[in-house]
Amino acid sequence: MPVVAIDDPDDPRLAPYRAVRERDLVGRQGLFMAEGEVVLRLLVRRGRFPLQSLLVSERRLEALGDLVADLPADCPVYAVSQAVMDGVAGFSIHRGVLGVGVRGEEPSLDALLEGLPPRALVAGLVGIANHDNVGGIFRNAAAFGADAVLVDPATCDPLYRKAIRVSVGAALVTPFARAASPDALLEGLARHGFTILALSPGGRRSLSEVRRTARMGVLLGTEGPGLPDAILGRVETVRIPMTGDFDSLNVATTSGIVLHHLAMQA
Amino acid sequence: MPVVAIDDPDDPRLAPYRAVRERDLVGRQGLFMAEGEVVLRLLVRRGRFPLQSLLVSERRLEALGDLVADLPADCPVYAVSQAVMDGVAGFSIHRGVLGVGVRGEEPSLDALLEGLPPRALVAGLVGIANHDNVGGIFRNAAAFGADAVLVDPATCDPLYRKAIRVSVGAALVTPFARAASPDALLEGLARHGFTILALSPGGRRSLSEVRRTARMGVLLGTEGPGLPDAILGRVETVRIPMTGDFDSLNVATTSGIVLHHLAMQA
Repeated sequence: MPVVAIDDPDDPRLAPYRAVRERDLVGRQGLFMAEGEVVLRLLVRRGRFPLQSLLVSERRLEALGDLVADLPADCPVYAVSQAVMDGVAGFSIHRGVLGVGVRGEEPSLDALLEGLPPRALVAGLVGIANHDNVGGIFRNAAAFGADAVLVDPATCDPLYRKAIRVSVGAALVTPFARAASPDALLEGLARHGFTILALSPGGRRSLSEVRRTARMGVLLGTEGPGLPDAILGRVETVRIPMTGDFDSLNVATTSGIVLHHLAMQA
Repeated sequence: MPVVAIDDPDDPRLAPYRAVRERDLVGRQGLFMAEGEVVLRLLVRRGRFPLQSLLVSERRLEALGDLVADLPADCPVYAVSQAVMDGVAGFSIHRGVLGVGVRGEEPSLDALLEGLPPRALVAGLVGIANHDNVGGIFRNAAAFGADAVLVDPATCDPLYRKAIRVSVGAALVTPFARAASPDALLEGLARHGFTILALSPGGRRSLSEVRRTARMGVLLGTEGPGLPDAILGRVETVRIPMTGDFDSLNVATTSGIVLHHLAMQA
């Protein structure tokens, strides 16, 4: 499909790209927004989510020629001036490339866990509403070869624009499923034979003592309140030892330390 | 010193709080801006940097009563409406508390390293211009008991407002010094008996093989280009093994994994 040059900022084909930030807040009904060259290359290469269209600033068109050439024939590429791009999106898109992806149907928690290999590592996120943290956890999950991520209803959407960006595209790579509640997340892992670890500053065992089992699930909660007591009371709790007077770790960093520890025992 | 209520947004005593974000960009000549209750409590409790004044939204005054009571007698507290606070600062200060700190004289790199104990862990940052990453690295340094952080000229100021915030105040806790160049940073560590590790995706040894020495310095570079070849050629290089097709870690997460590994061998 040839590149379509568009001059008119009111062209209806640009509608999905209008007011990007406001749309972030209300969601996109079956679609998601991906931004930046690295993320879009990954999206196209993996092919897990179809791309509905691509919007490219004219000044980036040449540099992105091979990306455009790799697109399926039914994905239009709209080329606009940087001014039209920024005007339509509502802020400066300095990366010069946006894409609208199609979510497709998400696997159920059971279907996802059922399909994993006998030896598998899964992260379970409970109440993690911060997009940077969710993106950071996905990045670490992909870097250390975690097989899946499960999210509870209070955790933010992994396909939120900023979460995808912070994940450097890992949210488009590592499969995820949503649990109906923190309990359902925990019970799903147990039902599929996962040993469950819950990270907590007051955890019973130090991470360095933890030995990898074949199927292992790691639960992570928010930085302030942490995981609910109802969860901590039901599973093995694990702490990362810190210096006495400054025991504060970011949850994405925590995920990196834990997944690295477990991946090294693979 | 009693709390001073101020109604007039043009009151000259509010001058240091004017246009916070614009000031972030040009610097504050001997001062720095700290924000939020957690950070300001740490600033006052540690006492490493004097507080020049505190600006509190009236609605937060009661909750922060003990913080105000702990201030030295020469530190004025200005109480303003949230509207005046937001108007003066130039954006919504939803945390409701700001403070201006005094930098004081920074130690030289040699003075800082000289004063460390025989067993010491130091992080050295080269070219890390991103405030989130510098803040995140300081947070990990404090959490894992690193004794100091060294920064090269291309690394952002640890006392930049956002770096302090992301560090959750750790930038006010862990001592730091500036090196005149990446070479001077490396040579300073060597001169003071530090074994030097340079983190790099292509590093020769895997992190899990690294054994802690008494004085150990860990060099971290930017995520894209990494540490300069001139540095990588002169010291032991270390990698964090990742999954083949997604080898991408955030540099703050990297610092957490490495410092945790070394702190566990203390």
